[in-house]
Amino acid sequence: LLAMPGLALANADLESKMANPKNWAAQAGDMFNQRYSKLNQINKDNVGKMQVAWMFSTGVLRGHEGSPLVIDGMMYVHSPFPNKVFAIDLDTQKIVWRYEPKQDPFVISQMCCDTVYRGLAYAEGKIFLQQADSTLLALDAKSGKVLWSVVNGDPKLGAVNTQAPHVFGNKVITGISGGEWGVRGFLAAYDINTGKQVWKGYSTGPDAEMLMDPEKTMTWTDGKMAPVGKDSSLKTWQGDQWKTGGGTTWGWFSYDKATNMVYYGTGNPSTWNPTQRPGDNKWSMTIFARDLDTGVAKWVYQMTPHDEWDFDGVNEMILADIDVKGKPTKALVHFDRNGFAYTLDRVTGELLVAEKYDPKVNWASHVDMKTGRPQVVAKYSTSKHTNPEHGPDVNVKGICPAALGTKDQQPAAFDPNTKLFYVPTNHVCMDYEPFEVDYVAGQPYVGATLSMFPAPDSHGGMGNFITWDASAGKIVQSKSEKFSVWSGVLNTAGGISCYGTLEGYLKCVDAKDITKELFKFKTPSGIIGNVFSYEHKGKQYLGVFSGIGGWAGIGMAASLEKDTDGLGAVGGYRELSQYTELGGSLTVFALPD
Amino acid sequence: LLAMPGLALANADLESKMANPKNWAAQAGDMFNQRYSKLNQINKDNVGKMQVAWMFSTGVLRGHEGSPLVIDGMMYVHSPFPNKVFAIDLDTQKIVWRYEPKQDPFVISQMCCDTVYRGLAYAEGKIFLQQADSTLLALDAKSGKVLWSVVNGDPKLGAVNTQAPHVFGNKVITGISGGEWGVRGFLAAYDINTGKQVWKGYSTGPDAEMLMDPEKTMTWTDGKMAPVGKDSSLKTWQGDQWKTGGGTTWGWFSYDKATNMVYYGTGNPSTWNPTQRPGDNKWSMTIFARDLDTGVAKWVYQMTPHDEWDFDGVNEMILADIDVKGKPTKALVHFDRNGFAYTLDRVTGELLVAEKYDPKVNWASHVDMKTGRPQVVAKYSTSKHTNPEHGPDVNVKGICPAALGTKDQQPAAFDPNTKLFYVPTNHVCMDYEPFEVDYVAGQPYVGATLSMFPAPDSHGGMGNFITWDASAGKIVQSKSEKFSVWSGVLNTAGGISCYGTLEGYLKCVDAKDITKELFKFKTPSGIIGNVFSYEHKGKQYLGVFSGIGGWAGIGMAASLEKDTDGLGAVGGYRELSQYTELGGSLTVFALPD
Ligand SMILES: O=C(O)c1cc(C(=O)O)c2c(n1)C(=O)C(=O)c1cc(C(=O)O)[nH]c1-2
Ligand SMILES: O=C(O)c1cc(C(=O)O)c2c(n1)C(=O)C(=O)c1cc(C(=O)O)[nH]c1-2
Repeated sequence: LLAMPGLALANADLESKMANPKNWAAQAGDMFNQRYSKLNQINKDNVGKMQVAWMFSTGVLRGHEGSPLVIDGMMYVHSPFPNKVFAIDLDTQKIVWRYEPKQDPFVISQMCCDTVYRGLAYAEGKIFLQQADSTLLALDAKSGKVLWSVVNGDPKLGAVNTQAPHVFGNKVITGISGGEWGVRGFLAAYDINTGKQVWKGYSTGPDAEMLMDPEKTMTWTDGKMAPVGKDSSLKTWQGDQWKTGGGTTWGWFSYDKATNMVYYGTGNPSTWNPTQRPGDNKWSMTIFARDLDTGVAKWVYQMTPHDEWDFDGVNEMILADIDVKGKPTKALVHFDRNGFAYTLDRVTGELLVAEKYDPKVNWASHVDMKTGRPQVVAKYSTSKHTNPEHGPDVNVKGICPAALGTKDQQPAAFDPNTKLFYVPTNHVCMDYEPFEVDYVAGQPYVGATLSMFPAPDSHGGMGNFITWDASAGKIVQSKSEKFSVWSGVLNTAGGISCYGTLEGYLKCVDAKDITKELFKFKTPSGIIGNVFSYEHKGKQYLGVFSGIGGWAGIGMAASLEKDTDGLGAVGGYRELSQYTELGGSLTVFALPD
Repeated sequence: LLAMPGLALANADLESKMANPKNWAAQAGDMFNQRYSKLNQINKDNVGKMQVAWMFSTGVLRGHEGSPLVIDGMMYVHSPFPNKVFAIDLDTQKIVWRYEPKQDPFVISQMCCDTVYRGLAYAEGKIFLQQADSTLLALDAKSGKVLWSVVNGDPKLGAVNTQAPHVFGNKVITGISGGEWGVRGFLAAYDINTGKQVWKGYSTGPDAEMLMDPEKTMTWTDGKMAPVGKDSSLKTWQGDQWKTGGGTTWGWFSYDKATNMVYYGTGNPSTWNPTQRPGDNKWSMTIFARDLDTGVAKWVYQMTPHDEWDFDGVNEMILADIDVKGKPTKALVHFDRNGFAYTLDRVTGELLVAEKYDPKVNWASHVDMKTGRPQVVAKYSTSKHTNPEHGPDVNVKGICPAALGTKDQQPAAFDPNTKLFYVPTNHVCMDYEPFEVDYVAGQPYVGATLSMFPAPDSHGGMGNFITWDASAGKIVQSKSEKFSVWSGVLNTAGGISCYGTLEGYLKCVDAKDITKELFKFKTPSGIIGNVFSYEHKGKQYLGVFSGIGGWAGIGMAASLEKDTDGLGAVGGYRELSQYTELGGSLTVFALPD
């Protein structure tokens, strides 16, 4: 027993921290990405009386995503680039230690969608920090001392990081950003104690480099699971294009101990001009289930073959044990950028449900449940290969959703009481004009000009907060919002569901009737962070970062002016500047004494 | 009557706005610098229940001094450099307009003590903005449109601005910063409607340029007021030194309609190495009373002749009608950097009281009431002319207060109910080593190396919040603070006195017993702004900027590391980084519904 303490012990520590609802020990609170807190002191009857308990400014202006962690009375706060870390004593709010990386500011210019960072991970007395420049570090949680550090990618080539590292077992899992620089995506696992790389699986390329077993890695094929076969990626790319083909991995990861699989999605194929890259471009836009120990892909499912709209598939996989079509199911539920919400069997990878979670979605009529492929509407295709009349320099108008999807990085929550998913969404459409572009190492490799606007013939706003039935594949309720809801949701045992808005409001609604707004408070800046909760000295707290930015807020964050700047987001979200200003702060709420 | 609407009308509008306690129409709430609100919904019995109503981030990181203005349901918020202005509708918190000056960032390097800005002024539908680069503008309060702009100084020579413009009558009064660049101080009056300069009075130099009447400008002389006589400044400087002799004017100004005089103080003589500038260096370190219409100096009083410690005399003059030594007096009360609190007759300029407001003050034994001169303790002199054994390259140790004084820019309040002054103070001492320095136009002209530390043999902290009896010249109560209290105080008709701390707490105490802390809340960052209050739709609000910086916070604001950097403040306030981080926000408080 002494000889193999690794996995079991690692899990034991983090799992025990997570099991205690006083902590917020991982970005989603758990490994299932459920974003549900068992605390119930703040509940639907008293949340209206909630007030601000204390605040903390991070000293960084740009977009603040993710949330702090809370472990045993200490809060760990991160910031966007330059990725500062603060350990704050919850008794005194004193800063016990701070870690301020010195990163080359050149990195800023290599980040597509603001200098965001989605947060820290914790395990066994260590805080894991994934810097923008791709350096992954373990810090001593007590002192902030660097225990080890490794380099995960080369920012000069556009390989940077924004996503939170995730600890599963004795490994810290990280991905890579840079789909707009032609970076070849991968997921990598590092040993939490040494920083040694244990495995690395690419999204595209030769089977060996993808850690794919042609015989054993399964995928949905003609209504059932079948092996992917040899060179499943190589066959879907022209020549060497897979080498600069994107499929980056900058989202939220999840893990199920029972299956020992890590679940995540891969991003868009590069470039945004699809005519340049004929084929399905596998395994971009794909849900991956990898074995935690070996990294080998157990199953894959590509949602948007030959992407023509930048519908990155990285959004979080929420693991939930629910009834699907009457059958108790170990489900994986995923709200994709492409506007379809997918329910899969997370053990086998079988496709169970795929339905639109915004009725305005128009680029595909539906997902063919046998092939698993979306049925593209030719009118909204931007690729010559799909619609011979379209292609480079043809401006395709009125595509819904816009490139930032019906949902982007903002994570949804699952409430085990209502069995519903609480989904912060975008209600935005676009015009998309692809153009020919050459790959130049280290330079943006985008190849499309975009304009974004609120979904036409709707409520005029750019967002909805919805509840979703993942078995029926149906919206249960929808609450309109002026702007996209770019903040992560938290549900709690108090019967509430809370999220932030781009204007800067934290809102809590009744989980059973989300049209009932029970609490609303204007924080210092627009909210793109995720709501979290913890308990300290008998009191429940609820917190959220404010700090406008991210892709939706890129105009303000990076002082961009032209409508089509910021990959098209500047014009779409221009009105934001009438509501809020930059500035990163944590606001912590509680009930009055 | 139609022929001379100027003065009377101008006053009428601003005075009527000020008379309505629902507004906060000037930086101090009034023209007397009393910082007292007649609102009493929030009072000493319920202030403990006060909570945050809403927040606003300014999008600027460095030190946030001053406060917003509130006029008829609209709030006007300013920021440090680049001196943004936001007009916020108090019904919706929507940004109705914003003005973002484009200033050359070079200006930042010409600012001694952080890129602070102490706020806007209002009158007759105009918002007056004094930019760091010295441009003074009038903006249309409804639209933010620029109505006029004038240039007040040359940043290339170190002439910048940080102080709030003040409207008195039909004039907007502004000063100048740059004492550490050898800038020659002045006060200037501009017509609020046209921006035309009406008068400009220098602090030093020929009588005509100082707007001094050798026969009629009076000063305290041998126990009575007497004319200053011819060349009163020129005689106290060697050669042309007055041209680069400082005496800048970056504080808060006040005005009494009854005397029609503007009251303000002038800053330190340049350089900080006093041996280089023999003489009294008049009229640096001086309280000025100027006629509003003509600018002519009615009376002057120099507090620290031949300054040897950078004891700028710019702190605000508080006008109050109080009994002094049993006699009803139109008083002017001033808490000087040098550690003495002065009570003068503001009509005549007579010196009535001059006493230490921190018992640790040691550089002078007392102020001789006949001559009005401080009696310097030779041991703490840094000038060869005062102590032949001291001078350049001699490190003089243990001087109290430090250069940032027993009080700096942070304004005190006067409470008409208790007749006491509520004074935010520094409790800091220093070592001071002057050195020879040459004047180079546009370069810092400092000439001393400083170290700062908490006043020895005291409570260990660096600040006190005190109440002061300006008749007796005595501290009534003193409440110790860990750091200097760098925030402006507000007293209200609710019987409370509120101030911020450098750790970031807003505190409200019982005005009758300031040791009773009734409310305490941790805002996002350290507080160097001033507390203000307003009423909207029947509800009283209390607000304050947080955003660490200013001279005390310069280490954090400008990322300085060496103890003696930031003119000695970096070492002294190093511990601040354990409590707070940068970031400018407004926090607005109210009672729960
Ligand atoms: O392809 C990529 O590598 C990549 C990276 C990122 C990122 O790292 O933030 C985003 C995107 N793509 C992207 O498509 C996107 O919509 C997006 C939104 C955001 C955000 O934080 O608001 N990041 C990203
Ligand atoms: O001599 C000058 O012109 C000048 C200017 C300023 C300023 O403009 O802020 C300060 C000072 N001096 C100064 O001596 C000082 O203590 C000081 C503190 C502060 C601040 O805002 O915290 N400014 C200034």
